[in-house]
Amino acid sequence: MIAIVLAIGDELALGQTVDTNSAWASARLAGLGVSTLKHVTVADELGPITQAIRDAAAAADLVLISGGLGPTEDDLTRQALADAMGQKLAEDEPSLQRLAAWFDDRGRRMPDRNRVQCLIPRTAQPIDNPRGTAPGIHAHLDKAEVFSVPGVPREMRGMVDDVVIPWVQDRLEATGDQRVIRTTKVNTFGAGESTVSEMLGPELMDRDRNPKVGTTVAGGICSARLRSEFTTAEEADAALDETIAQVEARLGALVFGRDETTLQEATVATLIDKGLTVATAESCTGGMVASMLTDVAGSSAAVAGGWVVYSNEMKRRQLGVPEAVLDEHGAVSPQVAALLAEAARERAHADLAVSLTGIAGPGGGTEDKPVGLVYLGLASSDGPATVLRLSLIGDRAAIRNRSAKCALQALRLTALGASLATLHWGTPVEPTPA
Amino acid sequence: MIAIVLAIGDELALGQTVDTNSAWASARLAGLGVSTLKHVTVADELGPITQAIRDAAAAADLVLISGGLGPTEDDLTRQALADAMGQKLAEDEPSLQRLAAWFDDRGRRMPDRNRVQCLIPRTAQPIDNPRGTAPGIHAHLDKAEVFSVPGVPREMRGMVDDVVIPWVQDRLEATGDQRVIRTTKVNTFGAGESTVSEMLGPELMDRDRNPKVGTTVAGGICSARLRSEFTTAEEADAALDETIAQVEARLGALVFGRDETTLQEATVATLIDKGLTVATAESCTGGMVASMLTDVAGSSAAVAGGWVVYSNEMKRRQLGVPEAVLDEHGAVSPQVAALLAEAARERAHADLAVSLTGIAGPGGGTEDKPVGLVYLGLASSDGPATVLRLSLIGDRAAIRNRSAKCALQALRLTALGASLATLHWGTPVEPTPA
Repeated sequence: MIAIVLAIGDELALGQTVDTNSAWASARLAGLGVSTLKHVTVADELGPITQAIRDAAAAADLVLISGGLGPTEDDLTRQALADAMGQKLAEDEPSLQRLAAWFDDRGRRMPDRNRVQCLIPRTAQPIDNPRGTAPGIHAHLDKAEVFSVPGVPREMRGMVDDVVIPWVQDRLEATGDQRVIRTTKVNTFGAGESTVSEMLGPELMDRDRNPKVGTTVAGGICSARLRSEFTTAEEADAALDETIAQVEARLGALVFGRDETTLQEATVATLIDKGLTVATAESCTGGMVASMLTDVAGSSAAVAGGWVVYSNEMKRRQLGVPEAVLDEHGAVSPQVAALLAEAARERAHADLAVSLTGIAGPGGGTEDKPVGLVYLGLASSDGPATVLRLSLIGDRAAIRNRSAKCALQALRLTALGASLATLHWGTPVEPTPA
Repeated sequence: MIAIVLAIGDELALGQTVDTNSAWASARLAGLGVSTLKHVTVADELGPITQAIRDAAAAADLVLISGGLGPTEDDLTRQALADAMGQKLAEDEPSLQRLAAWFDDRGRRMPDRNRVQCLIPRTAQPIDNPRGTAPGIHAHLDKAEVFSVPGVPREMRGMVDDVVIPWVQDRLEATGDQRVIRTTKVNTFGAGESTVSEMLGPELMDRDRNPKVGTTVAGGICSARLRSEFTTAEEADAALDETIAQVEARLGALVFGRDETTLQEATVATLIDKGLTVATAESCTGGMVASMLTDVAGSSAAVAGGWVVYSNEMKRRQLGVPEAVLDEHGAVSPQVAALLAEAARERAHADLAVSLTGIAGPGGGTEDKPVGLVYLGLASSDGPATVLRLSLIGDRAAIRNRSAKCALQALRLTALGASLATLHWGTPVEPTPA
């Protein structure tokens, strides 16, 4: 089955808004083995929209149109679809009743303008929209099935998942074209893409393998992407599960979770699972580690709190770092990282504490202590704090973000009883006694 | 002048990558008064790419194609353009020399595969690419000028700015079609879009006005968008400046900056300008305010540090909130907000301190204290802390983000000597004496 995806709107054609709907829908269709031949984005002009619908219906089996179903004069998809079908628009009574009820439920009178949203081509079917005011339209044109859905991403995605995807699945099943594709991501933090690829090895990374395994990186998170394609769900699932097990065995404790799981969610879940509490002492990240941990709903079970010790005075007065240590080693030193972590753990009465002190840039770097040098301290009940030296690259935002994620992964590894050496980006350093 | 923008690539058509090139290029062209009629994204297949180029050249004055110029077998834009022009590809000798030099400069031998990147249709002109290996192509086809540029965003943007935009400007000047468009954003935080629209008033918001003024919201930041369109740069600039002045006069201290200025940048700049230092005491935002402030390079001049007092124990032990106050009023109360701000200011030896305590959800809400209730404390040298009650809507992430931004805006307003009443989302509350 071949699809063409259309997106309608001046704001898209003029570049004020990036069209994310078409990529999302194409990825969804690709998951069923349906290839998208092209995307076409058209400004709010009747003739060009009509022509685009006609061209698409002549070339594809499935045409998905998003946008242009609103109540205003520049919402032209309904009329263009009717013109392309050589039909008139007619009011759909059930849609009108649903729309009136939608406004009623919200204690508002339906504006007259919205009535036009219930017009559809005579032989088409309306698609209910439980998430907004614009019903969708399902029509036949030429050799294609045409689905017209709202442009608001939330409404578009809901309608595609509720109606278009099930329709495609039924059709593929009926024609015996069914392919089942299962995908997943195995997420790691703490090593670069080339290291992760080497750990996976050539057999798993073979391009002709099924399930196929590839790697991608975003925000320092390196993920193994798995894609399993078979004719039945049983085969696809079984093969995927087997490959996941192989991938996770190779990558070990670097793996913090699958699919949309974030590093902060995984870290907080591990802390809660192990019954551990944590405190933070942050200089260069200025509160980012604590903010990430408390992003997670329910994190109060594991997070005691923390200190943002941005100035040396705060390091001295709030966490008791002796002035002599700051003078001798500087604020960016393994000694200070160790003292901050130990003091935070003790003063917060927490099981674990993590500290970060470093040079995020763009200014402040020297030959000895360049931008990107960060010391991470980790204190636990096992005695003196462990210190890792991180040498990070990127701009200020990237250095702060990677530092904070190293702290999260270090907490998670410690809570699991795994070695901090798992974190390839950290080099253990021994603070000379202060 | 009418443009059509094409993007070539399987990864785009299949939805693995969102096409941002087309929107960027269209916005660039719109800045010169050139309207983009449509965008077409085509998979890596020769026939459909050739057809898309032919169709575009028949309908537009300017066709911009990004992608498909790499050295591999699925890079088909060169061949498709030649086919659409009914020509053969021929090797361009100067391009070949430049490409060999590009590799030479990097101490590498040019792989044979890259040689195909120097093929162009016989009557076309190559476009030098100082940022990568793929030269662009400039050709005439039908009534259109066709520019084919690489798909890598950095290379695409460079080539559009270096070659396409100057060509368009020359053409517009030669034909007397020149229009100059200047745009800017005036950014506010602390009031909703309808309030901002009302403050701007019907005269400024008139859709037929030039410069035109509209509003948009992203992440709680409401921006007035101004668009000034005239035949000369002098007129466009003068009219824009006049409208900016009117907009800023109407919106007053709600405005924190223009264009890409962030609220944290504006806040830190104001604090530094006034020579003030700040401390934070955060419960529900868990370090987000401190993290935002220290996002800004150079923020150490204004940020002393802060406390993440997520647990009641941290509130008591680190910032001295009496147990009796926590018991009587609860952690989410104006009393606790006031005490946290005052203690943070005092203990950090800072000029100002801000505190946040609230219910970010999804759990933890009650009838009296629902999810979204947040108290913001602000302490200065003026005596007892001021407390605002915020009633925020959205999910946990939105409530935390809006709370943190309210704290930044409150700091900025206080540093400026402006009233906290500017922050429409805050209601002043008088903590009853603890």
